[in-house]
Amino acid sequence: MITKIDHLGIAVKSIEEALPYYENVLGLKCEGREEVASQKVRTAFFAAGDVHLELLEPTSDDSPIAKFLEKNGPGIHHIAFATDDITGQLAQAKGGGARLIHEMPFAGAADKLVAFLHPKSTFGVLTEFCQGSH
Amino acid sequence: MITKIDHLGIAVKSIEEALPYYENVLGLKCEGREEVASQKVRTAFFAAGDVHLELLEPTSDDSPIAKFLEKNGPGIHHIAFATDDITGQLAQAKGGGARLIHEMPFAGAADKLVAFLHPKSTFGVLTEFCQGSH
Repeated sequence: MITKIDHLGIAVKSIEEALPYYENVLGLKCEGREEVASQKVRTAFFAAGDVHLELLEPTSDDSPIAKFLEKNGPGIHHIAFATDDITGQLAQAKGGGARLIHEMPFAGAADKLVAFLHPKSTFGVLTEFCQGSH
Repeated sequence: MITKIDHLGIAVKSIEEALPYYENVLGLKCEGREEVASQKVRTAFFAAGDVHLELLEPTSDDSPIAKFLEKNGPGIHHIAFATDDITGQLAQAKGGGARLIHEMPFAGAADKLVAFLHPKSTFGVLTEFCQGSH
């Protein structure tokens, strides 16, 4: 079952350039920064209530985020739902006709299990399920 | 101060077509549907924790959502932050260099006061502030 929105992924060209907007214009506090080598991104996290905003900056031209920026420009990249049963959630999604990018959940950041649904099967919204503590 | 994410606006061509995805694939419950004549949209709401997902379907070719769909296809349209002081929030945004679409908040759905920031000044994310009960 989906329990909440865990985070929103937001693609940016440069975290350095975007930080003052999030910190000063919105007034949100940066909770941390991390480089995820496997995804070829740098990230910065902010909290808005119990939802996290995750800025994603590519570290390489062949990063998925670099490709997204090239096609769409900066903006919201994905929505991540927290679930209490990621395996059941994926089975339910598959049964309902969604296209799974990952048939099996894998270990994401912060020791969470994650998996994605393809936006072509989710009315244009790249959708992540995640289970585990943030 | 931003207290939480109030809702995410998601542009769809047809709520009827998208409903089974939200209800059966994600397993979310539709909280209600509404037509907002002034915005030329039909909406349907779902809850994910304390954040609402707001599907937006244009009712006319000159609806802002029709234009968004034409340019981008379906997907996340805007992010709405709940604030406890929308006037102060707008002043802070303006002072920080954001471009306000609305200098003054106006009455939106569900008796909330709302105002938007232009995505060209927010790193590609159409951003709404809202104050009041949902």
